Amino acid sequence: MDATPERAVHDVVVIGAGPGGEVAAGYLAQAGLDVAIVEDRKVGGECSYWACMPSKTLLRPGEVLAEARRVPGAAASVSGELDTAAVLAWRDDVVNHLDDSAQLPWLDERGITLYRGWGRLVGPQRVEVDGRVLEARRAVVLAGGSTPTVPPIDGLAEARPWTNREATTAARLPASLVVLGGGVVGVETSQAYRSLGVDVTLVEGERHLLPREEEFACEQVTAALRDAGVDIRTGARATAVRRTADRVEVTLDDGGSVEADEVLVALGRTPQTTGLGLESVGLADDATLSPGLDGRVGGLPWLYVLGDLDGRAPFTHMAKYRAGLVADAVLGRDTAVRHGADDELAPRVVFSDPQVAAVGHTTRTAARAGLEVRVVDVPTSGNAGGTFHGAGTAGTSRFLVDEARGVLVGVTLTGTEVAEMLHAATIAVVGEVPIARLRHAVPAFPTRSEIWLHLLDALRE
Amino acid sequence: MDATPERAVHDVVVIGAGPGGEVAAGYLAQAGLDVAIVEDRKVGGECSYWACMPSKTLLRPGEVLAEARRVPGAAASVSGELDTAAVLAWRDDVVNHLDDSAQLPWLDERGITLYRGWGRLVGPQRVEVDGRVLEARRAVVLAGGSTPTVPPIDGLAEARPWTNREATTAARLPASLVVLGGGVVGVETSQAYRSLGVDVTLVEGERHLLPREEEFACEQVTAALRDAGVDIRTGARATAVRRTADRVEVTLDDGGSVEADEVLVALGRTPQTTGLGLESVGLADDATLSPGLDGRVGGLPWLYVLGDLDGRAPFTHMAKYRAGLVADAVLGRDTAVRHGADDELAPRVVFSDPQVAAVGHTTRTAARAGLEVRVVDVPTSGNAGGTFHGAGTAGTSRFLVDEARGVLVGVTLTGTEVAEMLHAATIAVVGEVPIARLRHAVPAFPTRSEIWLHLLDALRE
Repeated sequence: MDATPERAVHDVVVIGAGPGGEVAAGYLAQAGLDVAIVEDRKVGGECSYWACMPSKTLLRPGEVLAEARRVPGAAASVSGELDTAAVLAWRDDVVNHLDDSAQLPWLDERGITLYRGWGRLVGPQRVEVDGRVLEARRAVVLAGGSTPTVPPIDGLAEARPWTNREATTAARLPASLVVLGGGVVGVETSQAYRSLGVDVTLVEGERHLLPREEEFACEQVTAALRDAGVDIRTGARATAVRRTADRVEVTLDDGGSVEADEVLVALGRTPQTTGLGLESVGLADDATLSPGLDGRVGGLPWLYVLGDLDGRAPFTHMAKYRAGLVADAVLGRDTAVRHGADDELAPRVVFSDPQVAAVGHTTRTAARAGLEVRVVDVPTSGNAGGTFHGAGTAGTSRFLVDEARGVLVGVTLTGTEVAEMLHAATIAVVGEVPIARLRHAVPAFPTRSEIWLHLLDALRE
Repeated sequence: MDATPERAVHDVVVIGAGPGGEVAAGYLAQAGLDVAIVEDRKVGGECSYWACMPSKTLLRPGEVLAEARRVPGAAASVSGELDTAAVLAWRDDVVNHLDDSAQLPWLDERGITLYRGWGRLVGPQRVEVDGRVLEARRAVVLAGGSTPTVPPIDGLAEARPWTNREATTAARLPASLVVLGGGVVGVETSQAYRSLGVDVTLVEGERHLLPREEEFACEQVTAALRDAGVDIRTGARATAVRRTADRVEVTLDDGGSVEADEVLVALGRTPQTTGLGLESVGLADDATLSPGLDGRVGGLPWLYVLGDLDGRAPFTHMAKYRAGLVADAVLGRDTAVRHGADDELAPRVVFSDPQVAAVGHTTRTAARAGLEVRVVDVPTSGNAGGTFHGAGTAGTSRFLVDEARGVLVGVTLTGTEVAEMLHAATIAVVGEVPIARLRHAVPAFPTRSEIWLHLLDALRE
């Protein structure tokens, strides 16, 4: 791992060792290529240390206790509140105390050379890392990810706002937090922090939280967060932020204002395209990188992009998926196909309570795409399985059927712990399994997967 | 509902108002037919009162507390044991205190006539119920279910053994229970009773519990039950049973014996074919009813059978599924198809902890069918999702790939709460989604559905 030459040659240089970069490097190395990976922060990427993993660690204890309280006979054994210190200690374990050394053997075993530093293109098939030049015989893969978007709100940058990084790694929780943005990060952080006793105010400029998802999902999550005590201000935007000695004050455009100990900016992420040396290969420095299905970009046969940087579907799972396609393309295998669960239609889960799990179209994107769909709504817990899981909680399963083609084109599930129920929908959508065939796929009794029966019954009529 | 004529004519007469009979009656009534249903016990059937529903009620509290104890930060809030009185009270609610009146409106709304009593054939298209004769213009559907098998073990019948009925409805739990039979009922009852503090001894004649499932499933469930304190005796059969004043003594053929307060017989179920008047239509009184895919039986164009009575796959979900096929056949629609998740390959779940969820072939049935399969094993919690669900527990996901056809033909999942993960496998198996296409169905991160990634990675190599 001591790679100190001024100049080195590899088959493939991957810039960025997040989930996408690592997986691409792994596949390529396993195929026998000499692979280098460049990382200026932590091997494992945002997801492992400051996003998916720690956020789920903060969410899970509240989720499991809420469910235990819904089960008679178990409820009485659940006493008191969450043990915040234990939750944070577990979080520290899950992110390996922000030490990425546990990830290095994975690279080592595959013979992948790690260069620590900022990697940027300095010409065709050439990458510079802190003065060293790496030549890539076959390909350069850009997988540098994204950064939190901090919009030009008066005083926001000066107020040293939290991003997902501080929210996921805080050593001590503030007594109060104002969250700007009701997307996935804003909603999950509000849910987690509230479950740990923090006073949370959630500010969302749109009329709804989770504005990309089905309206019923937004409504159910909003109601649940309100019930949990989150102060939700929708249709309001921050116009100014000021930090005083020990407080942050946020002024809203609806005339209101909010004070809290900290302010979290959760207003989306920006692909980190600047500083990559794109101009050295004839691309604009701040180009929007719009790769083809196989990840190839800029009309250059040796340049690939994947992960958040490609602006397509900023999810760990999609970065890992696309890493496989990119690796195949580098290896000369053509495996990329168009299908109904990619880009904005990619599978996605919000780990709130109720959770929101969706794949493919929503009614809005279907309409925008000019699809005529039949909409079938089913209560997620309106079946025998719902007696035992998420009893009495809100939840809706929406199936969108393209009747002309006889296939499902979108599914949104809301309810307690529905995340694992999503993959059945993803297989049905991606596999284009005919509805007439789905009828023979029988969900086991008594599980909540019987939502599928109600879909098929509705289509019988 | 006051149907008192000596003679009545309907389009269809369904004998048995369990899940299969009810669903068939419902579909037929919704299609505009005049439907009668005959039930001598409870509308809703075994499943609602004495099987799936109460057994899951007894299992769920222990399951959710065990999981909460695995989650740091939540674990400390779980104190003490299950509240058995609360569990039993919930159980009573779930089985509606053995009162089926709540099920009657469902029949009423569909215009289905209920006859209470024992229904039996008295000639072609004629059914007698306590002296009344019902004529069926189009079809008779036999859906009378099964009864617990009580084998001729010396003294067993005289010892008044428990069956699933007593085990699921006991008003008071015995201090100790000996369970004969390590199939689904035996395993689930052992798990539930042990979680409620009962001393349980489980006796299974085969070398393994759950002998139909993959051997690793049996081993993991055996180990977990042992850890929970169940005394498991495999490879031992009861040869004699004696009840004394307040104990039952079971003699085993391995020289041992067991004493307990009660003995549960969980040695399978027998289709209840006797007493159905089969001889009146030219069939043997105790015929094994082996219907075609559409449920038609005995070469008679008007006679159908479904549910446990057909001996194919004694599960509520398969009875409901087959009810749809039978209803379609009666209506002249041909919807039955052969597929890879029917009969002994039907989806099935054992609600132990770990759970066992399977569909399609096991390695044994695949070998028996002469299939060459590639076996891919993945630890169910060996992924990011496993950090949050079932952490540290045993679990294996086995995928059987028919490489010649490029499709999955069997999946067995073991682990904590894997039941909802099964339907993805069922859709893949029944839909015959090509493995090359499954690769594009991306499981959301961080969920345990990432077991699918490991399958696809393994097949890449």
